[in-house]
Amino acid sequence: MLCVNTVFKKLASFKKTVVLAGGVGGARFLQGLTRILPPDRLDIIGNVGDDIELYGLHISPDLDTVMYTIAGLVDEEKGWGLKKDSFNFLQMFKHYDCRTWFKIGDMDVATHIFRTFLIQKGLPLSEVTKILCHNLGVKYNIIPVTDDKVRTKVDTKEGLLDFQEYFVKKKFEVEIRKVIFEGANDSIPNSNALKVIEKAQIIIFAPSNPIVSIGCILSVPGIKEAIKRSKAYKVAISPIIGGKAVRGPAHKMMKELGNESSSFGVAAIYKELINVMIIDNRDVNLKTSINDLGMSVIVTNTLMSNMDSKINLARLALNSMSDVQS
Amino acid sequence: MLCVNTVFKKLASFKKTVVLAGGVGGARFLQGLTRILPPDRLDIIGNVGDDIELYGLHISPDLDTVMYTIAGLVDEEKGWGLKKDSFNFLQMFKHYDCRTWFKIGDMDVATHIFRTFLIQKGLPLSEVTKILCHNLGVKYNIIPVTDDKVRTKVDTKEGLLDFQEYFVKKKFEVEIRKVIFEGANDSIPNSNALKVIEKAQIIIFAPSNPIVSIGCILSVPGIKEAIKRSKAYKVAISPIIGGKAVRGPAHKMMKELGNESSSFGVAAIYKELINVMIIDNRDVNLKTSINDLGMSVIVTNTLMSNMDSKINLARLALNSMSDVQS
Repeated sequence: MLCVNTVFKKLASFKKTVVLAGGVGGARFLQGLTRILPPDRLDIIGNVGDDIELYGLHISPDLDTVMYTIAGLVDEEKGWGLKKDSFNFLQMFKHYDCRTWFKIGDMDVATHIFRTFLIQKGLPLSEVTKILCHNLGVKYNIIPVTDDKVRTKVDTKEGLLDFQEYFVKKKFEVEIRKVIFEGANDSIPNSNALKVIEKAQIIIFAPSNPIVSIGCILSVPGIKEAIKRSKAYKVAISPIIGGKAVRGPAHKMMKELGNESSSFGVAAIYKELINVMIIDNRDVNLKTSINDLGMSVIVTNTLMSNMDSKINLARLALNSMSDVQS
Repeated sequence: MLCVNTVFKKLASFKKTVVLAGGVGGARFLQGLTRILPPDRLDIIGNVGDDIELYGLHISPDLDTVMYTIAGLVDEEKGWGLKKDSFNFLQMFKHYDCRTWFKIGDMDVATHIFRTFLIQKGLPLSEVTKILCHNLGVKYNIIPVTDDKVRTKVDTKEGLLDFQEYFVKKKFEVEIRKVIFEGANDSIPNSNALKVIEKAQIIIFAPSNPIVSIGCILSVPGIKEAIKRSKAYKVAISPIIGGKAVRGPAHKMMKELGNESSSFGVAAIYKELINVMIIDNRDVNLKTSINDLGMSVIVTNTLMSNMDSKINLARLALNSMSDVQS
C-alpha cells in the first residue's frame, strides 16, 4: 500500500486531464481537482442520460451539478441545486400540475429556462452548456458526452421508468431488472469529447455511479473505444465504500443487476478500461482481488467530507501514474 | 345627473354580462363585478396584444392580471403579479441575460412555464387560459379575444417597440406616433367571444386603456361589428379622471395620437359603440359634450380605491341601463 503522505508531497504534474463525471460525487471530486488544475489542463465529459424534459423545460441535472459546484454556487449540503435558493415556483406549480416531485428551485429554474430557450433556438446542448458556464464564470470545459438525446431508463416491476422518476420520485426503492440508455446506439459522441480523450495524458473516472453515470457516458458509441485507444493513464475512483455508495443507489443497482456491490464490483465494470483503481481504506481487503482484474490499486481515504479531502483525493488521482509505477 | 344612492338601492339584475377588459384597471373593476354576478352571468373578453414571448416563455400580462385578481391572488398594491411573490428567479436570470426589465416573480414564472408548456403541446390560448383558471379556482370565463398572435406595437422615434418594451422598459416616456396591432387583420376572433357578445344583455367596456387594451380587442376583425350588431346595452367606464389616467399611459398616448386626453376623448373613441359613458365626478363639466356624441352620461366616483368603491362602480354599470332610461 502506498503511503499517502509521500504522494501529497509531490506537486500535481499538470498533465492534460480528462474527467468522466456524473452528478454529486463527480462534482465534489472536481471541486478538489479544479483547485489544482488550470482550465487549459482539464476537460470534463458529462453525463446526459439523466436529463429530463419536465414542464417543457430541458433539465440537465448532472451537468448543472458539475457547473454549479465548479462555479461555487452549489448547495453544499445537498450537493445539488443552488445555495440559498427558494422554492416558491414549485409551490405555485402545484396548483397547475401534481408532478412536482422533481425539486426545482427559483434560481435553478432560470438555468432551465435559459437552456431550453437556447436549445429551442437550435443550439446543440454542448454550445448551450458553454454559454451557461461562461455566464456563471466557469472556465472549465464541460462537454456533454453527446448532443443527441440519450435517456437512462430503468426497467422495474413497475415498468420502464425515467431515471429521475426512479431516482427522485421512487427514491430508488423499487427493484431494477435492467438499465437502458435509450437513444445511445444512434447517438454521435461530441467531437470535442473524442478529441480531449485522444489528447489526454490522464483520464479519471470520477467517483460517480458506474452503472448510470459513467455507464451512460461509456454507452455512447465511440467513447469506450476512444478511451481504450488513448495512451492516457486511466484512473478510477470507487464511489462505493464498505459495500455502500456514499450517496445514491449505485450499490443497490449493482447488486440488483448481478454485480458485486463493492469497490471490486466497480473495478470489474471498468476492467480493461483503467490502469489503476483508487479505493477506500475500509476496502483494503479487496486490493488483491482487484489487482487480479489486471489493474493497480491505491488505497486511501476516498470520503470527500471537506475541501482538504477533496483536494487530497484529486492530487492522488493526478499523481497515481507516477506513484503506482514508482 | 343621477343620484348614485338611488342606483345602489337597486339590486343587480343579473343580466348576461360581457366585459371587455385590459390589465389592472379592468381587473380591479372585475373584482367588484365578480362580487355581484355569478360565473354563469359574466363572460370576460381579454386583451392579448400585450402578450410577449420572453426567454422562450409565453407571457400574457393582461390575462394573468385578470385571472390573478379574480382568484384573489394578485399583489393588491402593484395591481399585477402575485402577492408575497419573490424575485430570486430574476436575480439568477441576470447571470444569463440582461433583458430582465420585465419583472417575473418566482411564483408567477410557474404560470408562464405551464402556459408555454400547454401551448407547445398544441392547445390554443383560450383552452390554456381555461385550464389555468380552473387550476386557480377561477370560475369566470376569461376569453382571450383571439387565439391568434396579435401584438401591440408602438411606433416611436426610437423605432417600433413591443408594447411591453414601451410600457415597462421605457416607462412610456418616449413619444408615440402610432399604435399597430400586428397580426390583427389576419386574426380570427375567438368563436366564444362572438357568441357571448351576441347573447349579452349588457356589454361593459372596463376602465382600461381605450387605445391599447380595449383598442386591441376591437381591432380583431368581427369584434367591433358583433358589438354594434348586439342588442345589448353598452356601457363604458372612463379610465381617465381629470385628464389623467388613474394608472398607465392612456392619457399620454391619447394626446400623442391626437385624441383629447380626457373622458371626452375616451367617449369619442367609443362613439357609436356605446349607449352610456360613466365618468368621474371631477369630469362633470364634460357631460354635455359627451352627450353630444350621442350617448348618455353617468357621473359618479370612478376611483376604485377599495372593495366598496369597486362594487359600487360595478353595480352602477350593471344598473346603468334602467337608470339612464328612467
